[in-house]
Amino acid sequence: MCVPMCQKKMAEIALNRRNFLKAVGGAAAAATASMMAAPVMADEKMFSPMNVRINKVVDLTHTITTDFPTYSGKPYYTTDLAITLAKDGYNVRSYNINDEHLGTHMDAPFHFSDKATADEIPVENLIGPLAIIDIIDKASKDPDALVTPDDLKRYERRWGRIPFGAIVAMNSGWDALVATPKFRGADDKGGMHFPGFGLEAVKWLLEMRNVKGIMVDTLSLDYGPSSKFDVHYTWLPAGRWGMENVANLSKLPARGATVIAGGPKYKGATGGPSRVIALI
Amino acid sequence: MCVPMCQKKMAEIALNRRNFLKAVGGAAAAATASMMAAPVMADEKMFSPMNVRINKVVDLTHTITTDFPTYSGKPYYTTDLAITLAKDGYNVRSYNINDEHLGTHMDAPFHFSDKATADEIPVENLIGPLAIIDIIDKASKDPDALVTPDDLKRYERRWGRIPFGAIVAMNSGWDALVATPKFRGADDKGGMHFPGFGLEAVKWLLEMRNVKGIMVDTLSLDYGPSSKFDVHYTWLPAGRWGMENVANLSKLPARGATVIAGGPKYKGATGGPSRVIALI
Repeated sequence: MCVPMCQKKMAEIALNRRNFLKAVGGAAAAATASMMAAPVMADEKMFSPMNVRINKVVDLTHTITTDFPTYSGKPYYTTDLAITLAKDGYNVRSYNINDEHLGTHMDAPFHFSDKATADEIPVENLIGPLAIIDIIDKASKDPDALVTPDDLKRYERRWGRIPFGAIVAMNSGWDALVATPKFRGADDKGGMHFPGFGLEAVKWLLEMRNVKGIMVDTLSLDYGPSSKFDVHYTWLPAGRWGMENVANLSKLPARGATVIAGGPKYKGATGGPSRVIALI
Repeated sequence: MCVPMCQKKMAEIALNRRNFLKAVGGAAAAATASMMAAPVMADEKMFSPMNVRINKVVDLTHTITTDFPTYSGKPYYTTDLAITLAKDGYNVRSYNINDEHLGTHMDAPFHFSDKATADEIPVENLIGPLAIIDIIDKASKDPDALVTPDDLKRYERRWGRIPFGAIVAMNSGWDALVATPKFRGADDKGGMHFPGFGLEAVKWLLEMRNVKGIMVDTLSLDYGPSSKFDVHYTWLPAGRWGMENVANLSKLPARGATVIAGGPKYKGATGGPSRVIALI
């Protein structure tokens, strides 16, 4: 069944795009058309010019330590100050990383598909307006809370449409738990409990909006109890990226910040430690 | 001996800063005063609000490969696709890094001093207006070319004063050589030949301007023939950072871009692979 808004959208999509652009003309029309048209294809560049007033810079990146929580619960790296100022005249570290998905890190499309590795993502798709979906209240009552389409629609009623090229973040309040066992939420049956995006929410974003990436303040795009990685297997194969273990979302407004998701540039990376910075 | 401009500067510094601010009032006055006053201390936050119009995003980051040129000439890492989509249902890489100074990477103050590690640099100091010093012409004639105070002054005559909180980059044209032996410029005596900042230029920047970081499109802040690392031992202990092997500077205007130097956030890092992005 197609509700009235949906019917309107279908009619808009049915307009021949070229004729529409010709009739209305100019860049503004192109932006309008791209908002109405079918979703941007996987790996396609998504960019529209922006004005950014920078009054404050907020670091959304956790400091990575050898005991930073990991998905498996095992350490993902060791490091050594291999060369030292006292002995050698300067300091250099070495690293042994058995899994690049550590700290505040990107999941590239290639992590769960044959699509773009981290270094292949168009740089334009790493920067965009940030929409923060606050589920702190329900997550405080249920660690297995999910971002739902209703949460996204509620956001839009309050803050306006999620813009073309946005980056959508779940703020579950979990970054405040990063130094506690609650962050992984391990139970005595080998399960985990922390919030994440729900499958229906990412399907809605893929179908109804043009979003560059999604971010979570927890260990995984999928919630803790997931065994099927539904969100990973839906979002990443669509050529979109994810960012896990993001920090400090509570220091930002729900709408109005611009985020730069500085993903890694190792050739063939499936993701990895990133520097994520917000400007407000 | 103090030349007239210098005498003027000394007189300005001698003004009591608090009284000056009180007399003139407001944020504009604070910005003016901070440009005139003594350099910002090591590790101190350096920030003033900015308006950024983003028409284009330019990636200043090279893709890191196992054969990417290194300072020592030896490989700095190995990597393996340890977990694969075909076998395990998803892709994950492992890395063995014997030296974190690989690819487009940061030198944190701690690399050559006991000052800030990469994770300790205030996030505000990773973003700023970019001033690009073009020495392509002289570097094409002499691979041992240096950025000198004259180059900085010539830049300022043409493009205006290097602003408070700027990031200053040397564009020697060397990034176009990255896939050739000329990038390291090894000679048959074990020496190297590529451009870098001169000691006098970084002293001038430290004394006369408030600059957050310097960037080079070569393997080292110091030029190839350096054996004493004068620039490293002067710039980094002042609490400033450097960025080496930067790409694509020729795609940017000399003045007008904003750069985000997304340094690594491993605790205790002496620097390391970074995502460097310019907005114009």
